[in-house]
Amino acid sequence: MEKAKKLLEELKGLEFSKMYNEDFLLTWEKSDDEIAAVFKVADILRDLRESNVSTKLFDSGLAISLFRDNSTRTRFSFASAANLLGLEVQDLDEGKSQIAHGETVRETANMISFMADVIGIRDDMYIGKGNTYMREVSKAVREGNEAGVLEQRPTLVNLQCDIDHPTQSMADMLHIINYFGGVENLKGKKIAMTWAYSPSYGKPLSVPQGVIGLMTRFGMEVVLAHPEGYEVMPEVEEIAIKNAEKTGGSFKKTNSMAEAFKEADIVYPKSWAPFAAMEKRTELYGNGDFEGIKALEKELLAQNANFKDWECTEELMATTKEGKALYLHCLPADISGISCENGEVESTVFNRYRDPLYKEASYKPYIIAAMILLSKVKDPAEVFEELIKEEPKRFRS
Amino acid sequence: MEKAKKLLEELKGLEFSKMYNEDFLLTWEKSDDEIAAVFKVADILRDLRESNVSTKLFDSGLAISLFRDNSTRTRFSFASAANLLGLEVQDLDEGKSQIAHGETVRETANMISFMADVIGIRDDMYIGKGNTYMREVSKAVREGNEAGVLEQRPTLVNLQCDIDHPTQSMADMLHIINYFGGVENLKGKKIAMTWAYSPSYGKPLSVPQGVIGLMTRFGMEVVLAHPEGYEVMPEVEEIAIKNAEKTGGSFKKTNSMAEAFKEADIVYPKSWAPFAAMEKRTELYGNGDFEGIKALEKELLAQNANFKDWECTEELMATTKEGKALYLHCLPADISGISCENGEVESTVFNRYRDPLYKEASYKPYIIAAMILLSKVKDPAEVFEELIKEEPKRFRS
Amino acid sequence: MEKAKKLLEELKGLEFSKMYNEDFLLTWEKSDDEIAAVFKVADILRDLRESNVSTKLFDSGLAISLFRDNSTRTRFSFASAANLLGLEVQDLDEGKSQIAHGETVRETANMISFMADVIGIRDDMYIGKGNTYMREVSKAVREGNEAGVLEQRPTLVNLQCDIDHPTQSMADMLHIINYFGGVENLKGKKIAMTWAYSPSYGKPLSVPQGVIGLMTRFGMEVVLAHPEGYEVMPEVEEIAIKNAEKTGGSFKKTNSMAEAFKEADIVYPKSWAPFAAMEKRTELYGNGDFEGIKALEKELLAQNANFKDWECTEELMATTKEGKALYLHCLPADISGISCENGEVESTVFNRYRDPLYKEASYKPYIIAAMILLSKVKDPAEVFEELIKEEPKRFRS
Repeated sequence: MEKAKKLLEELKGLEFSKMYNEDFLLTWEKSDDEIAAVFKVADILRDLRESNVSTKLFDSGLAISLFRDNSTRTRFSFASAANLLGLEVQDLDEGKSQIAHGETVRETANMISFMADVIGIRDDMYIGKGNTYMREVSKAVREGNEAGVLEQRPTLVNLQCDIDHPTQSMADMLHIINYFGGVENLKGKKIAMTWAYSPSYGKPLSVPQGVIGLMTRFGMEVVLAHPEGYEVMPEVEEIAIKNAEKTGGSFKKTNSMAEAFKEADIVYPKSWAPFAAMEKRTELYGNGDFEGIKALEKELLAQNANFKDWECTEELMATTKEGKALYLHCLPADISGISCENGEVESTVFNRYRDPLYKEASYKPYIIAAMILLSKVKDPAEVFEELIKEEPKRFRS
Repeated sequence: MEKAKKLLEELKGLEFSKMYNEDFLLTWEKSDDEIAAVFKVADILRDLRESNVSTKLFDSGLAISLFRDNSTRTRFSFASAANLLGLEVQDLDEGKSQIAHGETVRETANMISFMADVIGIRDDMYIGKGNTYMREVSKAVREGNEAGVLEQRPTLVNLQCDIDHPTQSMADMLHIINYFGGVENLKGKKIAMTWAYSPSYGKPLSVPQGVIGLMTRFGMEVVLAHPEGYEVMPEVEEIAIKNAEKTGGSFKKTNSMAEAFKEADIVYPKSWAPFAAMEKRTELYGNGDFEGIKALEKELLAQNANFKDWECTEELMATTKEGKALYLHCLPADISGISCENGEVESTVFNRYRDPLYKEASYKPYIIAAMILLSKVKDPAEVFEELIKEEPKRFRS
Repeated sequence: MEKAKKLLEELKGLEFSKMYNEDFLLTWEKSDDEIAAVFKVADILRDLRESNVSTKLFDSGLAISLFRDNSTRTRFSFASAANLLGLEVQDLDEGKSQIAHGETVRETANMISFMADVIGIRDDMYIGKGNTYMREVSKAVREGNEAGVLEQRPTLVNLQCDIDHPTQSMADMLHIINYFGGVENLKGKKIAMTWAYSPSYGKPLSVPQGVIGLMTRFGMEVVLAHPEGYEVMPEVEEIAIKNAEKTGGSFKKTNSMAEAFKEADIVYPKSWAPFAAMEKRTELYGNGDFEGIKALEKELLAQNANFKDWECTEELMATTKEGKALYLHCLPADISGISCENGEVESTVFNRYRDPLYKEASYKPYIIAAMILLSKVKDPAEVFEELIKEEPKRFRS
């Protein structure tokens, strides 16, 4: 537990008191110290678990999960985080297509939250909807708590919305930090967040947006690369630009994958849908125009097919820093010749990075647990000190 | 915890020893003291939870839920109650339409109960079926326990059947008790359980039946109002009449919503299906006559449409005691202009009562937990005294 | 807890150290001492639970279940076992028909296992697939653990595959052992594992295979009876033959149900599909030939219908040892005149044995828990000694 002890001392130097009793919806709503606190707490939780110390802070209580899109990975990550802290997951299965409105949200949010300490929501399908929905739920349970309906206020964790995917980008970032031996080693490192070809349409924009919104805060050179027409939300680009200005890093855009990869320390090639198309899709959906949606999907696939050369090849990898850039992906990847004929990445590249990729993913449960812990526990340092002293066993082996 | 301590003293004065190792299926099978004990225990559990005292009496064990009808609210209430006591919910998904018979029930009940301490069942779709099914399950696991198959006998909680909805009516009642400052203030209060229009058919009768079967036990003036043809089960009316006789209250019926609302202290306007139609539906279902069911549904909707004026309006509310009757609903309500064009209640009425309505619902998990606790714990007072003394923390914050 | 104490002393005399950190996939991969250890631990766990002693060795942690075939009994047994030890079940719902390959298995296995201590898999539909799949998953998580992706290595429990059904056969065997008053009383006992008619097709072979692969290890006379064409996997017959040679018992085959039942101490009449047909089905499935599968199923039902006289009748039961053979079934059984017109067993026979049948089934959660415990706990005897000394309560009643 030496690692946990050291991290705990570092945690004590951070100011994150405003996270208490608050949601985690967008990384850029959190201060640098708050972001750093999430990383410290995640690493502390991981070290404690590896040392067979139980971090079950809750003796009972529920963690509600609400997935408005299919999910295996995030679902299991959320369940793992909840279990690590002692909360029992209850899944609210709303049906994938239903978009609830106003009063219904308010009522349902309260009805499921009588014993809920946290609510995790994934709602990434429609531009302008997901994040808005989360804020509606948050407001509803805050009011419910104030009115004496709910004994406690469940805080929210954004498990992916239309704008950001904070649990993903934070897990990616913690992987980068640990891979490069500390946040202090990241200054000037080049990271290429690039579009890549996939034979599917409509992948959410929240991953590239989450990455440029977060990675620009560490003094790195962040490059966003995509074919024309695959722009992300301009509001998030604005945030990336401001972040870069503040931290002495940079944020650049290009339409060349090769330019992005050149001398990059980190590459993140991943497919996404064009923002304009996603907006159109939301509109069609709002109008119940399912024929229109089908036509749009066909159109999008055809558009994608113009950019099959946007693939993370060995050749491209060879152009990165010493040919050894760290390859990232949120998984599952479209691997050429494996999961599809032409995809985001050549299979030899993917295979070489499998262990680091899985390691990258392994941070997510701890990141989610850290977000929950920081929103629920008033004095995390004190609680960790107690745990380190008492060493309650996770497993009586 | 002063509240819990006071309630505990009151609990000690009640005789409820027969609840131990017994099911909770119909409120009228329980004595006045037993009903009172459920309210006391529910309020004690709530106060302990608000005081961050863990009431996890079970270190392990399962709570089986069996929903033969869609449910979000009751499902989460049951899960919350189980979690509060330390039981893990396992849901038996039987498929909504399947009605199991004899041997299958007996076998399945045992196969799922090896570690089950409690079974919660919702089966409200068919007249003459739901409660009968619960008793079959109860008998099966009792025999399984006696034969050494099951280490413990899981007790049953009726989460809504064709006859009663005890967790709902008890939650409603506890809300009333706390709203009026104690059961001693209810004598002579007028409560109007009235039918209301809804553009849907086939809503169960168990809510109005549960209400008249329970509320007549507290010396109140209970009025049941509905259009002709929307009668409830005569057996339950019999019980309401007897209850009223015994407690010095009254039970009256009327076909006028206005009469019911007049000077009422509490109003409960809610749609339900006519008993005769529900009986016919069960028969059609038994014959596999799905065409007949469709025709019946159409007929029922047309019949409902004759009574669109059965709506809880501001005008009607103004005729209640000082215009301020407590408005109740089991939720979700059909709100005119919100969830449908014409519904059970005007939106301004509903909106004004939103907080109390949510509060009403918030009692359900505690009522269910109290029912479980009283059926499993031999000496609840002793256990509560220990908890109050030891103060085990629910959340290490 | 006298029983637990006695069993603990017997456990100490067994050599089972190699079970630590290993999967439980086939009974014949385990030594006699290891098999005996599972029985001892299962009975200890049961006695502790009956004595209200908590065996929650895990304070947190997940038990992943992965059912590639419908299941209620095994699902609840696995959930019960996990709960008994303190693990929370998370179900991975893959869709019933999907057969994942290579990389996908590797990735998914890691993605769901970050907090997983155990994975239970049921995959019994296709010859040559289920057990292979389990080994793929096992390899994937072992590698994930070695690469630092997973903090712990989840061990696997085979909840039924194409070859063996160890949790079933072990539960059956523990029932036999306790019924006859100890394993030392089984020498020379005759057990008839016989095919029986059922109006359904494609029932897995893993039950008869599991039974002949395990029951031949106790010096019993094991008879496998089936009509011509209903052969089981020859590899498993080989194992049965070798087992019998080693233990002084016997393994015989016959095409006569009457011969098998004659003077039998135990009978296990149960339907299964012919091995050759199952192989053909797997091939058709591999080719996506769903028309072929339909045709095959029709053919199989017709073939079955030739053997309607393979029924466990009162007449046949009368020919067993003193007319009182112990009747076994993995449940649910096809009961003539109850669940179908003609089935595996006459209803009077089934009814007479209902309690023992349910008791037989009741061992399964304990067998699964024992398998998990022996693979996760380094020194089970020490842990049990602590539990017996400390007597942590399962239920504070």
